[in-house]
Amino acid sequence: LKQVALKKKVIGIDLMGSDAAPNVLLDALKAQISSLSPNVELVAIGTSEYKEKASFLRFYSADEAIQMDEHPLQALRHKKNSSLVVGLRLLKQGTIDAFVSAGNTGALVSAAKMILGLFPSLLRPALLALMPTKGQAVAVLDVGANLKEKASHLVQFAQLGSAYQKVRGIKNPKVGLLNIGSEPLKGTSELRLAYQKLKNSSLHFVGNVEGKSVFDGEIDVLVTDGFTGNVFLKTSEGITSFILDQLNTHFSEKSLTELRHRLYYTEYPGALLVGVKGVVVKCHGHAKPESIFQAIKGAIEFVSHDFVKNLHHEFIYNRL
Amino acid sequence: LKQVALKKKVIGIDLMGSDAAPNVLLDALKAQISSLSPNVELVAIGTSEYKEKASFLRFYSADEAIQMDEHPLQALRHKKNSSLVVGLRLLKQGTIDAFVSAGNTGALVSAAKMILGLFPSLLRPALLALMPTKGQAVAVLDVGANLKEKASHLVQFAQLGSAYQKVRGIKNPKVGLLNIGSEPLKGTSELRLAYQKLKNSSLHFVGNVEGKSVFDGEIDVLVTDGFTGNVFLKTSEGITSFILDQLNTHFSEKSLTELRHRLYYTEYPGALLVGVKGVVVKCHGHAKPESIFQAIKGAIEFVSHDFVKNLHHEFIYNRL
Repeated sequence: LKQVALKKKVIGIDLMGSDAAPNVLLDALKAQISSLSPNVELVAIGTSEYKEKASFLRFYSADEAIQMDEHPLQALRHKKNSSLVVGLRLLKQGTIDAFVSAGNTGALVSAAKMILGLFPSLLRPALLALMPTKGQAVAVLDVGANLKEKASHLVQFAQLGSAYQKVRGIKNPKVGLLNIGSEPLKGTSELRLAYQKLKNSSLHFVGNVEGKSVFDGEIDVLVTDGFTGNVFLKTSEGITSFILDQLNTHFSEKSLTELRHRLYYTEYPGALLVGVKGVVVKCHGHAKPESIFQAIKGAIEFVSHDFVKNLHHEFIYNRL
Repeated sequence: LKQVALKKKVIGIDLMGSDAAPNVLLDALKAQISSLSPNVELVAIGTSEYKEKASFLRFYSADEAIQMDEHPLQALRHKKNSSLVVGLRLLKQGTIDAFVSAGNTGALVSAAKMILGLFPSLLRPALLALMPTKGQAVAVLDVGANLKEKASHLVQFAQLGSAYQKVRGIKNPKVGLLNIGSEPLKGTSELRLAYQKLKNSSLHFVGNVEGKSVFDGEIDVLVTDGFTGNVFLKTSEGITSFILDQLNTHFSEKSLTELRHRLYYTEYPGALLVGVKGVVVKCHGHAKPESIFQAIKGAIEFVSHDFVKNLHHEFIYNRL
């Protein structure tokens, strides 16, 4: 039993495909690795030219990198051993316990579906981000795994988000649908249909929610399509950075540190790809090395608490 | 000439159809009306039961009100003399110079198209909101006049937004397309098509822009569909209110007043319905009386500067 508890947590890091150059990322990892528990091992996945620079880490070689501007499916077809595919294979075979990547989202999501597989009866995975509010953090999904969503996908995201919050200890998570008004007739036809389906489901659905009220902290799960959710997340980041910038001109740096810590989204541990059988954490493409390091810490938390396994069970147990 | 300059500016206010009860709105107007220039007259439009309470204002009676949860076109068909239709007719015939409403958006937009007419060759109007950034304010459109937009609509919104900023004195406004990444291939097929059309247009198109970078102040016009734009606007409002709330627990009220003034979206004068021949200012349905009063001030500004007439000329002159 003791041996199991002390089993090393191995986190794989994709060095490739983000805006941060692999060398810059490696420098950041080297500088911060000592702050991690000795029970954690970081593993780098990249093309062989970075092997020497990464000599302080176990290293797995990939043949190539998928770039941000490549078409996801074409790239996966032509680059059979890209860093993200190598990483996901290592995750599938248990060599690593979690995979963190800031690479091409579409390619990562498609490859994760193929290599890791989806939860039973799930149509699509979603990227889930936990965001701060006046109350408890809200789980927002999808923040970009897909572009458009049908009502049936949105309903499954509500189930996934609800399962996620149950695993975090919230008994009966309140689910809202991101819309442009609270009335049932608001929004696109898919949103109106999703509203009806959610209303008739066993989930604790509280109705349509506007971007304005999300931060009041009265819901635990916010369901949206991947395009809108991505805009929602990035707008929140943008306006937070804008306001903190304004504050800097008014208040001392010292007095702002706590607030910054509470609000700043680089502190938040990336988005979890929910619905695939494995811990895959996605950072955005222009993530700075420090936020990739935060995502690594987030991945360690997920692994430590067997989070995705519990999520999987919760999802099956509460299937609609 | 002097007479023209001193011509009274008459602003019509829709008392009906928002979350704020007409009586509450009238109390707020009564309390604040003395702060307006004597050169401005406010006119109330509502059902006759509010006539007495509104005795301090010129009053126009409507037969009924269109509610927020009504289907816009059905409501317009069945309620021929609703307050918003009466108001738009008064605007069309020149009895009022601007119309401010916090009522049903879909009904207001459809009625404005029919009663006021569109700029030549324009397919649809858009709601435009001016939002604060680290630099100059950015004109965001559409923030909710329509739900979905085709590439051709988005291109026209870019023209409208560009014309709007030219009238505000910006020589060569920079136009960005709200998207989930900066690469040309990002987003839906309509966004990809709009990207190509804008790239090949005479507008100063700077490419796709993420919600994160909008607030850096490097663009003057942000083009998006009405659903996403509405989420964008309301998310910005929500997170601003959230952060100011957090700040209240850290800093004194006094030190925050200036910042609040700079950021708080209730200070911003509602959204202008651009593309119709008349000054129509839309406040959101849950606007508080004080933000409706801000919208009235915004409408006075638009009227004082012949803004919509200039916008119309600018739009025609720079048609693609």
